[in-house]
Amino acid sequence: MVAGPIRTALKVDFGKSAQEQRHFHNRWHPDIPTVGKIVPGEVVKVECVDCTGGRIQNNDCADDARDCDLTQPHYLSGPFEIEGADPGDVLVVEIQDVQPFEDRPWGFTAVLDRRNGGGFLDDHYPRSAKAIWDFEGIFCSSRHIPHVRFPGLIHPGIMGCAPSAEVLAEWNRRESELVSVNTLDRVVALCPQPEGVHAGSAEEDLRAKVGREGARTIPGRPEHGGNCDIKNLSRGSKTYLPVHVPGAKFSVGDLHFSQGDGEISFCGAIEMAGIITLKFELMKGGIRELDMKSPIFIPGPVEPHFGPGRMLTFEGFSVDEAGKQHYMDVTVAYRQTCLRVIEYLKRFGYSGEQIYLLLSCAPVQGHVAGIVDIPNACTTMSVPMDIFDFDISPGAPIPRLDMGSCAYTSDRR
Amino acid sequence: MVAGPIRTALKVDFGKSAQEQRHFHNRWHPDIPTVGKIVPGEVVKVECVDCTGGRIQNNDCADDARDCDLTQPHYLSGPFEIEGADPGDVLVVEIQDVQPFEDRPWGFTAVLDRRNGGGFLDDHYPRSAKAIWDFEGIFCSSRHIPHVRFPGLIHPGIMGCAPSAEVLAEWNRRESELVSVNTLDRVVALCPQPEGVHAGSAEEDLRAKVGREGARTIPGRPEHGGNCDIKNLSRGSKTYLPVHVPGAKFSVGDLHFSQGDGEISFCGAIEMAGIITLKFELMKGGIRELDMKSPIFIPGPVEPHFGPGRMLTFEGFSVDEAGKQHYMDVTVAYRQTCLRVIEYLKRFGYSGEQIYLLLSCAPVQGHVAGIVDIPNACTTMSVPMDIFDFDISPGAPIPRLDMGSCAYTSDRR
Amino acid sequence: MVAGPIRTALKVDFGKSAQEQRHFHNRWHPDIPTVGKIVPGEVVKVECVDCTGGRIQNNDCADDARDCDLTQPHYLSGPFEIEGADPGDVLVVEIQDVQPFEDRPWGFTAVLDRRNGGGFLDDHYPRSAKAIWDFEGIFCSSRHIPHVRFPGLIHPGIMGCAPSAEVLAEWNRRESELVSVNTLDRVVALCPQPEGVHAGSAEEDLRAKVGREGARTIPGRPEHGGNCDIKNLSRGSKTYLPVHVPGAKFSVGDLHFSQGDGEISFCGAIEMAGIITLKFELMKGGIRELDMKSPIFIPGPVEPHFGPGRMLTFEGFSVDEAGKQHYMDVTVAYRQTCLRVIEYLKRFGYSGEQIYLLLSCAPVQGHVAGIVDIPNACTTMSVPMDIFDFDISPGAPIPRLDMGSCAYTSDRR
Amino acid sequence: MVAGPIRTALKVDFGKSAQEQRHFHNRWHPDIPTVGKIVPGEVVKVECVDCTGGRIQNNDCADDARDCDLTQPHYLSGPFEIEGADPGDVLVVEIQDVQPFEDRPWGFTAVLDRRNGGGFLDDHYPRSAKAIWDFEGIFCSSRHIPHVRFPGLIHPGIMGCAPSAEVLAEWNRRESELVSVNTLDRVVALCPQPEGVHAGSAEEDLRAKVGREGARTIPGRPEHGGNCDIKNLSRGSKTYLPVHVPGAKFSVGDLHFSQGDGEISFCGAIEMAGIITLKFELMKGGIRELDMKSPIFIPGPVEPHFGPGRMLTFEGFSVDEAGKQHYMDVTVAYRQTCLRVIEYLKRFGYSGEQIYLLLSCAPVQGHVAGIVDIPNACTTMSVPMDIFDFDISPGAPIPRLDMGSCAYTSDRR
Repeated sequence: MVAGPIRTALKVDFGKSAQEQRHFHNRWHPDIPTVGKIVPGEVVKVECVDCTGGRIQNNDCADDARDCDLTQPHYLSGPFEIEGADPGDVLVVEIQDVQPFEDRPWGFTAVLDRRNGGGFLDDHYPRSAKAIWDFEGIFCSSRHIPHVRFPGLIHPGIMGCAPSAEVLAEWNRRESELVSVNTLDRVVALCPQPEGVHAGSAEEDLRAKVGREGARTIPGRPEHGGNCDIKNLSRGSKTYLPVHVPGAKFSVGDLHFSQGDGEISFCGAIEMAGIITLKFELMKGGIRELDMKSPIFIPGPVEPHFGPGRMLTFEGFSVDEAGKQHYMDVTVAYRQTCLRVIEYLKRFGYSGEQIYLLLSCAPVQGHVAGIVDIPNACTTMSVPMDIFDFDISPGAPIPRLDMGSCAYTSDRR
Repeated sequence: MVAGPIRTALKVDFGKSAQEQRHFHNRWHPDIPTVGKIVPGEVVKVECVDCTGGRIQNNDCADDARDCDLTQPHYLSGPFEIEGADPGDVLVVEIQDVQPFEDRPWGFTAVLDRRNGGGFLDDHYPRSAKAIWDFEGIFCSSRHIPHVRFPGLIHPGIMGCAPSAEVLAEWNRRESELVSVNTLDRVVALCPQPEGVHAGSAEEDLRAKVGREGARTIPGRPEHGGNCDIKNLSRGSKTYLPVHVPGAKFSVGDLHFSQGDGEISFCGAIEMAGIITLKFELMKGGIRELDMKSPIFIPGPVEPHFGPGRMLTFEGFSVDEAGKQHYMDVTVAYRQTCLRVIEYLKRFGYSGEQIYLLLSCAPVQGHVAGIVDIPNACTTMSVPMDIFDFDISPGAPIPRLDMGSCAYTSDRR
Repeated sequence: MVAGPIRTALKVDFGKSAQEQRHFHNRWHPDIPTVGKIVPGEVVKVECVDCTGGRIQNNDCADDARDCDLTQPHYLSGPFEIEGADPGDVLVVEIQDVQPFEDRPWGFTAVLDRRNGGGFLDDHYPRSAKAIWDFEGIFCSSRHIPHVRFPGLIHPGIMGCAPSAEVLAEWNRRESELVSVNTLDRVVALCPQPEGVHAGSAEEDLRAKVGREGARTIPGRPEHGGNCDIKNLSRGSKTYLPVHVPGAKFSVGDLHFSQGDGEISFCGAIEMAGIITLKFELMKGGIRELDMKSPIFIPGPVEPHFGPGRMLTFEGFSVDEAGKQHYMDVTVAYRQTCLRVIEYLKRFGYSGEQIYLLLSCAPVQGHVAGIVDIPNACTTMSVPMDIFDFDISPGAPIPRLDMGSCAYTSDRR
Repeated sequence: MVAGPIRTALKVDFGKSAQEQRHFHNRWHPDIPTVGKIVPGEVVKVECVDCTGGRIQNNDCADDARDCDLTQPHYLSGPFEIEGADPGDVLVVEIQDVQPFEDRPWGFTAVLDRRNGGGFLDDHYPRSAKAIWDFEGIFCSSRHIPHVRFPGLIHPGIMGCAPSAEVLAEWNRRESELVSVNTLDRVVALCPQPEGVHAGSAEEDLRAKVGREGARTIPGRPEHGGNCDIKNLSRGSKTYLPVHVPGAKFSVGDLHFSQGDGEISFCGAIEMAGIITLKFELMKGGIRELDMKSPIFIPGPVEPHFGPGRMLTFEGFSVDEAGKQHYMDVTVAYRQTCLRVIEYLKRFGYSGEQIYLLLSCAPVQGHVAGIVDIPNACTTMSVPMDIFDFDISPGAPIPRLDMGSCAYTSDRR
């Protein structure tokens, strides 16, 4: 009756590259071989590399962020077979814990170059930048963004079950359609990409197939969740995931020490390698029972909590920087909101890139406030004032503080 | 030194229509005459009618919502002259309290007809519906949506200072431009509308001018806030509003007993008449000092609070009902999220309209979760499970409850 | 089906003294005549005078506190007959709202003289002092304790059903026994007191009987709750009260705008006159069903909330000021804890009396931390740092602020 | 500039008994040799054994709890020399993390025998009982108390700096005085006890001296904190500890996975071995600067949080089980409050011992509610309803659940 230590279902080998390790994969495909079996009711630990598979260095130069090979992320741990899972079931995943590796107590937040990934504000901040975060127990701080410190709401950016062939075909159909009609001067979707593919222990033929067909891990998708980057999927949360293939083929990865709503700089959370402890249950026939089209979850009861009276909240509307009126466009409104926060915080001596990085990873709340008063969508972003070690409230005197610098690329003048 | 009762700066006369009362107005215009003067540091009570000026009845028929004259809303109380306020200043407004009138302990939530205002989900719910809410102290409940009860996070939907002539011209320019290029099969913005105009105590000439030029109160706008419908602008909050004209010309109205993030059914909060207690301070030169382009605020420390582990959270992505992929469109994602909640809650016997109404006014949280993983924006909506008197958690048995009906129009088959 | 305004079941007449109004009483006795009937399910408003019946003035002199006639408090509103209530039932009382009177937006906190009531720290602060609080919507501030402001967790200090003759006899037995064996140099219990008695509309004979037998309102008692002074019995709370007599005979009074855990200065909350909105339900046979010996309650979901990281917490142990070790005495420990807070906050320029008053009424949390490590009980008091408009955290520089003075008695040198 | 992994300043050897390991000690004495040096600003990990040094087994029999040798606890890790610390300084200790050992994911709560330690309710529950808790990430559950599960507010029960010779003498004076005048039929304080003493690496002479003079670790004491058992001293908290000897000589131990306010069953928290991550800062001359007599602290911003509306709160007063009235005795009131909770929860099928154990370790809140209304002190205990997997609210139907049994002693009939 005595429970022993928790089984580790997957161990990272830091002596090898992520590509060399057969228990990772970086595409969604129903045929990727499973790496182990988990019985419903079981609790397991799963080790994960960071989203880039370890390519970002703990240093003061952002060249690695600029040169990041985007055919590779994200390296996911899995897929795991969940015993007895069938299409139509719901897999209930309780996140019991997430921790960085004890001997790797750091993570990073990066702005990618506009020509290589970009981010939500890349019109304003087109070039790469980076901040390294040191973990101090539940807190983190960065030499690249001084006078800021906050506890992490630690979570995985990606969790999901494998798509069925039909679901995968639907993904490829609709995303390639978007690409084919695109008139914007930017990449709008990442179609299957044979280069850089990692299909776990798949043989060459299957690997090539996964390269041709496999969905990228970059967007989250309604049918399975995946890369949804929801900061509240933290310790104690319980997520209900639709099952599309026999055995569920569950994968997890892209661990974040912390993230702000939106993860605005794209590689924007505090990315880290770490260990996640998961408990699995199965709800047979759950998709029909819950009339489920997309995952749902219940957050955990433990989280950093700042009183509402300690939040400084910024408003933004769907009128863009050029004064152009957009019709109920929450995306435009949220971008404006981000810009408002940046303007405000720059007054204290930070650079725009520093705040761009900070808003991507600090526990800021982004709300859809008003979405019906034509033509202006209104959004808010709330910044907890207590993450700063000086007073940022309106009217407070501006202290003279050395705000240092985030990491830039070596070719920056 | 002894403070007396708080001065009531504006009293509603319920024996007259809102149009007949000279201390209201329903357009934004710099020339609308002020209705009184307030000294910085002063605390005043301001009475407000509901957003429709009292046209919605406490009954079980939604014809009044369907036939609502949209040239009229919102009736705002004011404008008030703030002594010493100049363009470039920031007006700091502390909301000390908001209360319904003691003898009018009720409010309403309405779905407007798609042909007359519509709402966020009008493709799915094109026809009018209504719910009446009875206030029970800090709680409300509705005979039209049984088995639900929650405390209000009471707030004004609209607060702002008058635009200057230049700001007003800019609003009219950009919104009329949107209208002129519109290709959607719907009204995308409300341009100045002489019909139904109320310009306070303005003489006929000025009234006509306000009708020709005055901005509608329907959208919030970045330069002054206005109709931002932010549910957290509740008791104890402190809002920083840019001043554009001498004397600030502050107005307030559109009181809400409660609202969900987004106010999705348009007339979607619990609309009510009531009394707001405000304290004003002036930050001279504050716009430059704070580098302010849009209002900011600090919420109050008092609010309903449900533990995070009692929120049921739904995910939505920017793939629409037809399976079409949209590029990073938060608006589409949030609509999907709303639909996911409706599907889930209909399982308990509610109609779609009941949930549509409920999500518009209950304290649901709508977050921008992921906004960088091309092409899918991801949003969440969190529903506090404790507002229901039965267990809505996934896996709980579905009780047999009589969910009654919301109010529909009389011509509904 | 349309609900009208809430019925006011009892109205205060401020033109008369509390003694003159027949719907008040200031003793607990089963025979005090009821003042009205309430049907289970009904919501009513009940008006209340302050605990002293209006004897404390809004001025800068504490003579009224010093000379307070302690035979009089508390004036309770009621008793109300609850239709259908029988001994053995449980009366469920939901507090839907508590408000001060609109034209009396102030309250008071007093230290009583050691020779006339005293308080928890009367060995240290034997003489009367007073602070007047002005209400600003949900907030309060005091000219007598500058640089402090907080939202009220508004509640009634006293609620309960009348004792039966047997319960009353038991109260009188055990309290008179305590008095008879008392060796302390202070009053240890208030026995029935014919002087100052108010028995509602009772005729002279009954009034005399109530004077002889009626229990004082001063302590709360396990059998019915009564004067329990629990700050969390605020808006939205639901209290389960044992019924001891037919009709329950429910009374309420002693409204507090705010109170700290312990109400340490005795007349220590922010005492006020006001209006309480209550809903009643009956749980037939509830005492046996719940195996209830004392009231229980569920707090409401709306309250001021300060993040835990914004609390400054002080520890105290059961070793008294003279260095004497007490055995597991939480009372001694809590007194020490209070003294620790006072010493700390005096550093900022406040007088001891100001802090004594403040801790009595601000939303401080007093916890029983450790109660098993012989011989030292350990308690904590947590002070929300955000109620001060300057930084009180350890290590923060001490600003030079004018802390003014609380009200003292006129004979103070 | 790159920070490496955190240094582990003390490692437990589970192959040896705690007595055999020279970096532990179980008495407070200024002369116990230090086990290492820590520089202000440094972050270190310190490993700790459980309070009993590993004597309680993960089994279903409480004999080990009954037979526990009370001359031994608590085994503390340390003392550590803090470089530069002098008497009069304040040592600021930030708890950055506390974790159980990965391969020991369990802890225990015990009721001790009344004749060997007892506990707060030993008049009612005189015999030993035990519950083993399994850790599931941030949650714990017990086969001995079914249908309960909660997240831990993890913390050390004991932290403190060594007393000076003077402080130690004062402790011994006042505690022995209490013993000498004791008339109760129980042990009221633990005086220095040569038997079972562990003085770290002290030579025999010093060890004997520590045995004769050293203060027991059982009570917390005002001058240094020590065994204060405050559940909120959890991750992210910052404690300010007075320094009494050169080098501070800081020790820590008695880790708890969770504890309720009061730790009522004495060995009452969820006791565990584990690892604590600490950061140290020094406030030179801080005792005078803060006018500090006892430690103070600021809790961390991360904690389990249940909405206030999900707490079921019980009241208790200073009238004991025999109906005897006590004068303002919070200890009696809190005991009554505990008994009220036990009576209530026994209705669901639990034994008294199970609830006694549960209240000792679950995150229940114990408040000093009213402490001025003579003669009745009033306390409350709030139980979060969400730790149960069934509905415990008043009026909810009582489900038929198998509540199993906690561990009892083998001689129990």
